[in-house]
Amino acid sequence: MEKVDHIGIAVKNLDERITYYTETLGLKLLKVEEVESQQVKVAFIDAGNVKLELLEPMSEKSAIYGFLEKRGEGIHHVAFGVTGIRERMAELKEKGVRLLSEEPGPGAGGAEVAFLHPKDSFGVLYELCDKSGKGEQK
Amino acid sequence: MEKVDHIGIAVKNLDERITYYTETLGLKLLKVEEVESQQVKVAFIDAGNVKLELLEPMSEKSAIYGFLEKRGEGIHHVAFGVTGIRERMAELKEKGVRLLSEEPGPGAGGAEVAFLHPKDSFGVLYELCDKSGKGEQK
Repeated sequence: MEKVDHIGIAVKNLDERITYYTETLGLKLLKVEEVESQQVKVAFIDAGNVKLELLEPMSEKSAIYGFLEKRGEGIHHVAFGVTGIRERMAELKEKGVRLLSEEPGPGAGGAEVAFLHPKDSFGVLYELCDKSGKGEQK
Repeated sequence: MEKVDHIGIAVKNLDERITYYTETLGLKLLKVEEVESQQVKVAFIDAGNVKLELLEPMSEKSAIYGFLEKRGEGIHHVAFGVTGIRERMAELKEKGVRLLSEEPGPGAGGAEVAFLHPKDSFGVLYELCDKSGKGEQK
């Protein structure tokens, strides 16, 4: 858990929400991309030291769709930037933290990601986000 | 909104949760303090580039008490570090964003804080956090 890479925020309408973050809050839009495997359209907003990751579901198959149905718009997860995601997953498992998947999956920006069980983190959904395979600066 | 100062997390039991963040996640506890005016006991955890602010209500008068009753434990707010909080509040007001108070109030660490109406930020409770009056590094 070297640092917080981004804060994931579930939204209903990406374009309208981007306008709020850029025009009202004065932050900068970094990029927009689609992550097919997660069925989400993602916008990264630069908040200085961390990114805000706005997430709009592309279909009912997206986990974000279910979140919006149940909780409405709002903060969905906090992602820690890590290197060696498999080792970090094994360490956490050894300490009794459940993970939502056995293996890391593909995330936005070419990252490998995995989620901790929110019950083990007392209601917070934490993501491990490893971009080291892409050689990106973290 | 120069950067994200901290992520506020509502918890039921500060001591147990501190153990999770330090021993399980391997993060460092920075300090624990009580904010009488908000009726919260606060622990700051160092997550590298941002702080995690664990908030336990000291009484039923705390906003965190109501949040826990309604939503359970989890992420409560995201705080932007700012300078000139009154000017930032006036700018946001002019752009049509409602604030939860007319004036900034006292926060943890001697900061002046104010909250944006979560409906105007699409379900996210954003805080403005100004420590410039204390001459602290931001």
